[in-house]
Amino acid sequence: MISQSMKKLIRPLVQRLHAYVPGEQPRIAGLIKLNTNENPYPPSPGVLRAVKAAIDGRLRLYPNPTAQALRERLAKLHKCGVENIIVGNGSDELLAMAVRAFVEPARGRVQWFSPSYSLYPVIAKQHGARLGSAALESDFSLPSIPKLRRAPGWTFGADLTFVTTPNAPSGRGYSTRELDVLCRALRGVVILDEAYADFASENALRLALEHPHVLISRTFSKGYSLCFQRVGYFVGPAALIAALDKIRDSYNVNGLGQLAALATLDDLPYYRNTTRKIIATRTRLSAQLEQLGFGVLPSESNFIFARTPRFPGREWLAQLRERKILVRWFDAPTTCDYLRITIGTDAEARTVVRAARDILR
Amino acid sequence: MISQSMKKLIRPLVQRLHAYVPGEQPRIAGLIKLNTNENPYPPSPGVLRAVKAAIDGRLRLYPNPTAQALRERLAKLHKCGVENIIVGNGSDELLAMAVRAFVEPARGRVQWFSPSYSLYPVIAKQHGARLGSAALESDFSLPSIPKLRRAPGWTFGADLTFVTTPNAPSGRGYSTRELDVLCRALRGVVILDEAYADFASENALRLALEHPHVLISRTFSKGYSLCFQRVGYFVGPAALIAALDKIRDSYNVNGLGQLAALATLDDLPYYRNTTRKIIATRTRLSAQLEQLGFGVLPSESNFIFARTPRFPGREWLAQLRERKILVRWFDAPTTCDYLRITIGTDAEARTVVRAARDILR
Repeated sequence: MISQSMKKLIRPLVQRLHAYVPGEQPRIAGLIKLNTNENPYPPSPGVLRAVKAAIDGRLRLYPNPTAQALRERLAKLHKCGVENIIVGNGSDELLAMAVRAFVEPARGRVQWFSPSYSLYPVIAKQHGARLGSAALESDFSLPSIPKLRRAPGWTFGADLTFVTTPNAPSGRGYSTRELDVLCRALRGVVILDEAYADFASENALRLALEHPHVLISRTFSKGYSLCFQRVGYFVGPAALIAALDKIRDSYNVNGLGQLAALATLDDLPYYRNTTRKIIATRTRLSAQLEQLGFGVLPSESNFIFARTPRFPGREWLAQLRERKILVRWFDAPTTCDYLRITIGTDAEARTVVRAARDILR
Repeated sequence: MISQSMKKLIRPLVQRLHAYVPGEQPRIAGLIKLNTNENPYPPSPGVLRAVKAAIDGRLRLYPNPTAQALRERLAKLHKCGVENIIVGNGSDELLAMAVRAFVEPARGRVQWFSPSYSLYPVIAKQHGARLGSAALESDFSLPSIPKLRRAPGWTFGADLTFVTTPNAPSGRGYSTRELDVLCRALRGVVILDEAYADFASENALRLALEHPHVLISRTFSKGYSLCFQRVGYFVGPAALIAALDKIRDSYNVNGLGQLAALATLDDLPYYRNTTRKIIATRTRLSAQLEQLGFGVLPSESNFIFARTPRFPGREWLAQLRERKILVRWFDAPTTCDYLRITIGTDAEARTVVRAARDILR
């Protein structure tokens, strides 16, 4: 119960926000957790060694405020300048900072495709921005430019447009060519959110180095097994990166996260191998679920989006949970017939298939 | 060089901000670093053990989004409810979030005492708030309420007031009684920033549990040697904590930081001992510098603020640096005659005294 006098202390905008409901982190023994797109494989032995070796008296010191060494390595990797990179406390922090740097509260507009990453409306509302969205096609492909011109929730003059590519929750990939066309039509800042790019057949990084208004978002959480450490980054035009840097918390990236990310870049062959394994499991799991009657969308990510046979998605969610398998279900007209299933290990995929067979029996 | 078209992409407010200049992190062999108030003692062996033991495949998983276990322990420690605690990516993140939760851009006002923590104007400007400040007395004590009523930069109706207590850079402590009087006079939210409270003879935590508009800010960086890990927290009324929680990044505190902070709370006797050592060194260093002609202010923190003899503060800064001792000097009329010296080990304090003697010779 908030009294009237308390209310005066809190901005009306913030009072109107709904409290964020965090994703489920159940502690059920033996649970197979395929609901938050975590990587089933551990970080490389080299990464674990590097982080362990740093656990000493140095924890008393501030980390490098600009993640300088990591930015230098990322610049080398992506063949750009260090001024084209900013590192965040997970890419989520950078996405929220972008809203604050590029969008005027009350007047400015943030837009995205629906469905995509559920964080975008949250951070746009926190800032008091105007919101807009355009529906993806029914197969989750991008609408054409002429179609977008007629879409009521869309404007090519929006201050900030988020594009999840590959898309979540559908897993669908978009070609750099079609993203380029979209970027050219948009006049505000565009963020191509490539959280899942490591599992895709192509990525659009070059667009962030060619266009003055395009940023690429990447993370060490998905392809590099470092969710726990909170490290993400943007690549893009120096002027946009500098603007983000001005509103960055001075020590925003913890020191062990910086070290872990650096060590990751020393071990890329290890991650190419785990990624290959995930893609192979994805192929097998998709085929086996198809055989059982699921409609599995082609995926370029570390999850699949599968239309459920016989029962509605919500019931599949419950039935799988009873069998200690946790997947994700989104309660919206365009998504409620699907389950989003994270690609785990091969053994986990086999358990999912067995459970599905059992449910259908 | 930012072109006109680039300019349209970035909010005018952000264009006008100055890029943050991070504190010096020099890599000079043998340098004695007494410029950023880091603790000279490592985290406890138990903390190092706990963090090392967590470096395994679990890094692939998301951390607890609300730092639940840590908040429960902190609530027990401070004899309050878990709804009275929010954990941040360092207390700096929470200070910036408070500006966004409690202050309307353009219309709302943020104020503080001058001199105090240099972050306050930075985060107020990032938000586009109106700024105000009142000068501390010449001995860095708090001005009386009648005096504040006449101060042009001060209003008791400000939306947010920051009070650094003990004060930085002066090290001066304020009594809970006088802070209580100040809080009662203020009508907006008050943040008592107790980053250095562990080194003080009293703290004002109870005010955050008694008043509906008072928050206490604490950090694991200073008294608990965890700068590298980025963990701070606020204690205060549930309604204000809930408002902050609504604008919090969903996974804002890295997992190893949460673990390290939890393990810290299991080892409080170790930290009482290191704190006692720091206070003893502070007493000795203050007396020895006084003998050399410095005017050392009484300190309730892990640094001292010392008026320099013979040469101006800026020259002392340079002379000490030549002798591989890095301290902090603030270029403002009320502070430029002083050096801020972090309390390091006893050996480091002896080196400072020797260097000072040498400079005065």
